Amino acid sequence: MSGVWGNRIKYSIFGESHGAMIGIVISGLPAGISLDMKMIEKEMERRAPGRNAYSTPRRENDMPKIVSGCVNSVTTGAPLTAIIENSNQHSEDYKDTANIPRPGHADYTAWIKYGGHADMRGGGHFSGRLTALLVFAGAIAQQILKKNGVKICSHIFAIGGCHSEYLISAVHPEQDDLDKIRDKEFPVAVDRDGEKMLEVILKAKEKGDSVGGIIETIATGIPAGIGDPFFDSLESVIASLVFSIPAVKGVEFGDGFSLAKLPGSVSNDTFSVHTNTGEINCLTNHNGGILGGISNGMPLVFRTVIKATPSIAMRQSSVDLLSNENVELKITGRHDPCIVPRAVPVLDAITAMAVLDAGSDYFFRERSNG
Amino acid sequence: MSGVWGNRIKYSIFGESHGAMIGIVISGLPAGISLDMKMIEKEMERRAPGRNAYSTPRRENDMPKIVSGCVNSVTTGAPLTAIIENSNQHSEDYKDTANIPRPGHADYTAWIKYGGHADMRGGGHFSGRLTALLVFAGAIAQQILKKNGVKICSHIFAIGGCHSEYLISAVHPEQDDLDKIRDKEFPVAVDRDGEKMLEVILKAKEKGDSVGGIIETIATGIPAGIGDPFFDSLESVIASLVFSIPAVKGVEFGDGFSLAKLPGSVSNDTFSVHTNTGEINCLTNHNGGILGGISNGMPLVFRTVIKATPSIAMRQSSVDLLSNENVELKITGRHDPCIVPRAVPVLDAITAMAVLDAGSDYFFRERSNG
Amino acid sequence: MSGVWGNRIKYSIFGESHGAMIGIVISGLPAGISLDMKMIEKEMERRAPGRNAYSTPRRENDMPKIVSGCVNSVTTGAPLTAIIENSNQHSEDYKDTANIPRPGHADYTAWIKYGGHADMRGGGHFSGRLTALLVFAGAIAQQILKKNGVKICSHIFAIGGCHSEYLISAVHPEQDDLDKIRDKEFPVAVDRDGEKMLEVILKAKEKGDSVGGIIETIATGIPAGIGDPFFDSLESVIASLVFSIPAVKGVEFGDGFSLAKLPGSVSNDTFSVHTNTGEINCLTNHNGGILGGISNGMPLVFRTVIKATPSIAMRQSSVDLLSNENVELKITGRHDPCIVPRAVPVLDAITAMAVLDAGSDYFFRERSNG
Amino acid sequence: MSGVWGNRIKYSIFGESHGAMIGIVISGLPAGISLDMKMIEKEMERRAPGRNAYSTPRRENDMPKIVSGCVNSVTTGAPLTAIIENSNQHSEDYKDTANIPRPGHADYTAWIKYGGHADMRGGGHFSGRLTALLVFAGAIAQQILKKNGVKICSHIFAIGGCHSEYLISAVHPEQDDLDKIRDKEFPVAVDRDGEKMLEVILKAKEKGDSVGGIIETIATGIPAGIGDPFFDSLESVIASLVFSIPAVKGVEFGDGFSLAKLPGSVSNDTFSVHTNTGEINCLTNHNGGILGGISNGMPLVFRTVIKATPSIAMRQSSVDLLSNENVELKITGRHDPCIVPRAVPVLDAITAMAVLDAGSDYFFRERSNG
Repeated sequence: MSGVWGNRIKYSIFGESHGAMIGIVISGLPAGISLDMKMIEKEMERRAPGRNAYSTPRRENDMPKIVSGCVNSVTTGAPLTAIIENSNQHSEDYKDTANIPRPGHADYTAWIKYGGHADMRGGGHFSGRLTALLVFAGAIAQQILKKNGVKICSHIFAIGGCHSEYLISAVHPEQDDLDKIRDKEFPVAVDRDGEKMLEVILKAKEKGDSVGGIIETIATGIPAGIGDPFFDSLESVIASLVFSIPAVKGVEFGDGFSLAKLPGSVSNDTFSVHTNTGEINCLTNHNGGILGGISNGMPLVFRTVIKATPSIAMRQSSVDLLSNENVELKITGRHDPCIVPRAVPVLDAITAMAVLDAGSDYFFRERSNG
Repeated sequence: MSGVWGNRIKYSIFGESHGAMIGIVISGLPAGISLDMKMIEKEMERRAPGRNAYSTPRRENDMPKIVSGCVNSVTTGAPLTAIIENSNQHSEDYKDTANIPRPGHADYTAWIKYGGHADMRGGGHFSGRLTALLVFAGAIAQQILKKNGVKICSHIFAIGGCHSEYLISAVHPEQDDLDKIRDKEFPVAVDRDGEKMLEVILKAKEKGDSVGGIIETIATGIPAGIGDPFFDSLESVIASLVFSIPAVKGVEFGDGFSLAKLPGSVSNDTFSVHTNTGEINCLTNHNGGILGGISNGMPLVFRTVIKATPSIAMRQSSVDLLSNENVELKITGRHDPCIVPRAVPVLDAITAMAVLDAGSDYFFRERSNG
Repeated sequence: MSGVWGNRIKYSIFGESHGAMIGIVISGLPAGISLDMKMIEKEMERRAPGRNAYSTPRRENDMPKIVSGCVNSVTTGAPLTAIIENSNQHSEDYKDTANIPRPGHADYTAWIKYGGHADMRGGGHFSGRLTALLVFAGAIAQQILKKNGVKICSHIFAIGGCHSEYLISAVHPEQDDLDKIRDKEFPVAVDRDGEKMLEVILKAKEKGDSVGGIIETIATGIPAGIGDPFFDSLESVIASLVFSIPAVKGVEFGDGFSLAKLPGSVSNDTFSVHTNTGEINCLTNHNGGILGGISNGMPLVFRTVIKATPSIAMRQSSVDLLSNENVELKITGRHDPCIVPRAVPVLDAITAMAVLDAGSDYFFRERSNG
Repeated sequence: MSGVWGNRIKYSIFGESHGAMIGIVISGLPAGISLDMKMIEKEMERRAPGRNAYSTPRRENDMPKIVSGCVNSVTTGAPLTAIIENSNQHSEDYKDTANIPRPGHADYTAWIKYGGHADMRGGGHFSGRLTALLVFAGAIAQQILKKNGVKICSHIFAIGGCHSEYLISAVHPEQDDLDKIRDKEFPVAVDRDGEKMLEVILKAKEKGDSVGGIIETIATGIPAGIGDPFFDSLESVIASLVFSIPAVKGVEFGDGFSLAKLPGSVSNDTFSVHTNTGEINCLTNHNGGILGGISNGMPLVFRTVIKATPSIAMRQSSVDLLSNENVELKITGRHDPCIVPRAVPVLDAITAMAVLDAGSDYFFRERSNG
């Protein structure tokens, strides 16, 4: 039952890494939205592989082609569909592994689930390549949110054991700082930390190994009142999309797992009326901008852990699913030693999709019909 | 749009803490399931307040009354509804706080979202009391899963800064050990750790403060092949329900946030054919039983962080939403200094709901019609 | 998977005719809606049985009790739940029929689907009694629509072979006339036709037989632009609810089945600019107010056929499902010789639910948050 | 919110008549289904235009290209996507009508709903061309159903005022007869009737006018127990898809609108045990194979009315939406004088989609996982 997400706007993704094309259908977008195609291209570029030494040299033709729902960059109200045609596949790289599941990948679980029928070349439908579609859809969502004053910025908080400073310490992050971080090729708060992280990546690459990391996402300008109690809590909606990104294994809001250690007298973000503006704000943001599943007007803050890229050059143990024997596996092909930097724009994207869906009554409030 | 969850089985919850009743409608349950009412009662009892020194002395009449969809403890195929009538409310305890949002609670966000119309007495629809409905629904889901060999056990891993040993180290936890932990009044792997945790709770209580903690959930017997890539990944489905539980602020699968530090050569759980049985297993379980969003036959393992109970006896700063002035707030009434122990059966419950929904094709495979 | 309907607002129904209660959970209603309880009572009364010679003498306690989501008749934003407790059941009337399916009823199909586990006393979950819940929910929807200028009026168009005049001939029905029809005990356009219809009903009753009929529904004031192409066409949304009403076997919009005979040059409702107002209207309404699945500003017009009440006093052939033998069946108990008059307010109700859901962007456009 | 349909299997359609392509994404299909491509082609051909004198001479390149979810004609379990690239558009034919809504079409409602942003060339997203996607999806559904013994046959029952004999009179239609009807170029029960119907079509064509008609659909082999009470009644599910087909204005099950005239003693289909086989059947089929929203094992029977093609060559009145003036409109281009014959395979298709969705528990019962 995979493949479709969303209440107000519905997103359907399809395609395999080495098939004819991958694509996404976005149903429910209002008509008359002028799309900023340059911004979409920029977001796609941020996720694109092959941009530097620490990512795979493999180049993808990742610029999506809009084939429905949009005329002259303006939405028509009909389902908007974008496709990315595949090319430059090295299917032969994967030939050997057809019956030999790569550890850490979906090969084994797909084999069991689909009875060996899945097209797993290049990861097939499980490929990280499909996150390009999320970036495309999220770019549109970000444009709609931006008109409503909402801005999203994800940055790399940790690579391997190498940590950055928590931006969360700044309860009201300066928007200028966030914008600057967002524009970096290696989006990290403090560049010196970034250099150390890059070293960690390159070291792993040299060994034929890989590393993971943690991304922190901050969204500013979300008005209080977005989200619902229980099943459609803003955390639930965001988390369901965060875990749609391959390789994500954890998400925490606000102080997250550290909240286990904080007493209520500290973790309760107390309210205060601003002397001058009369606005109500929290003095701290331990809850990451969400209380009772609903946004409270503070910046939305959450962190996502991405495991190390499963594809490594080192020899690994595995099994042959046909002969049911233990075998050794050597993955060839070109792979990112660390997928974290390329996951940053994906997190921006799905955050926008989630916030837009949770707050559709608000963000589409000007629409009169349909 | 809150209030309804699920694909194959749909759960609708309703009710407020101090209203006439709370309830849950479960649509889509097959007919002919013999419900073990004793087991349901036991699960409800595990979540019930007032059982010991570290929980609120407030007693609830928490035993649900089934009012539709079930005759003589056998499901009829029609929507099954259970209600819990409210009594023993001390609404006056909350009177003062109507315009003064309690820090850490949903009072403020509900005020904004619902324009002051929400019935927030006792937390209203946001009350942790509604988790009793999840426990009820989850007890039924657990019974269906158990017939399919799936067992779920959540245990307290940390209270405040006091940690237990990771059960995860045991790749194949002994079912007997899990069963024993599950039966404990304070479900913790090592009782000595539990005693220390209880001290942490009582110390917070004495100060009029509260503490949070971490719960680890383990489910054994889930066959490989449950879950989907992307939007309906098993992690997405579970996470959407985990974050439906009030006070949850983070969830991590397998090694979770520690995966940031592990190289791929370690975090990749390698496959191996068992010499005697010929069964394929992973030799480690860093991925918590899920690869590519799909169960891999290893135990499902995840951890959930619960923040400290927002209701504390200490005086706190807040604002008066009518006069827009800063005020001090003193919460009276009876509250848990630590909600973590009572959240344990809730996590068992929602895990069962999530796994049953993700694997409905498998778990309901014997049904012939409708 | 039955029991839940709706996109923006979700309705979950539950309960059996002879169970403890029946009820409906309405999730997604905005907070702050003042409910007109008198109007709700009036709608319930319109559907209530036992009001006259042509309906069952059986009295129901049909006034719903709101148990959540509403304080002092104002919605709180939490799921709104109403229950009707059951009483006055004559379960013994149905005892004999437990294994002997009543022709025309759901007894046989429920037996097969639920393997004999369904609680079919009084029709169980299939009972027309549950339409009281739709009337309740629809009364709320009608109130929201009325504030937006939308009014709904269903009237009896045919009973047995006795037809009324088509109101559809009046392209712009006078609202006054519709209001008057709506208030009638026997809502028919021309009272003389109504008298003939009543005779038909009484004649059937005397024979121990029953009759069906046709109801025409007209909704005025729906703005152009409500509905969607294809899967969520306004016709699709309405039809899915119309066929949720027990005993409905057909629905047609505008000229409906007569359109088979009309050439395009006639059935095409031509557009015209009003000389004085400058408003665009159709000069005819063969399409019943819907073009391409979307409302066109003309009155919504559709007709629904209701089959004769399956419960008749005459002796009927059936089978014993346990012994697998042919038997004769005599249904005792009190039953409507014609359910059509009581279905009129149900059609008003579900029309409102459908239009509200299809046009939620428009009807809830003033909501700022969540 | 249009564009996505289905519970167990989800169908997302996209595309406009004169855009780059139209397509459909089918999510949730089990892996390992061998698709009969020849059968799909045959179904596509049945709907294709330009086959004879009574349909438009316009040729479409209607053979869909599968671009995901299928390798060597076997489903992989990933979303299956088919696209039809557009060519041979005569967009200039529609240029004049951009601001002048064609009567009977969606031009006006789309203009209002989408604020003039819709791409309405050739009908845009509202075009009947998109029904080719339903035929494709329905062909797959029919293949799955056929393996379960379910066969679907729609035939033309009326064109204009020219009626055929009701097949419904045959309670157990001979499968051979149905198969023969299905294979006809002009699928009608009695060929002599068909000849008269063709005359009606050609006469309308000569006048530059168009005609509508009625299609009857019969599905045999559906086991008892498919469907649900109320919201997901088999009638509701089918009707929601029937009204997704452009130009459909009514649907009736079994005896349909004639049921208004039948007394309960006749319309109640009495049950009987077959003397030899011991099987339980109804002796009549006034209810069209559905009781209480659930299939009863009798043939499913329903009729659909299709209005006359709105595109006619005759001069029509309309309005200029920009100048707000009354104008005359002359539609050029090539159009079917009667769309009914081409709608026959579309009805077969959506019937299969609906029955498969309603009975997914049954039809996918052999699936073990996921």
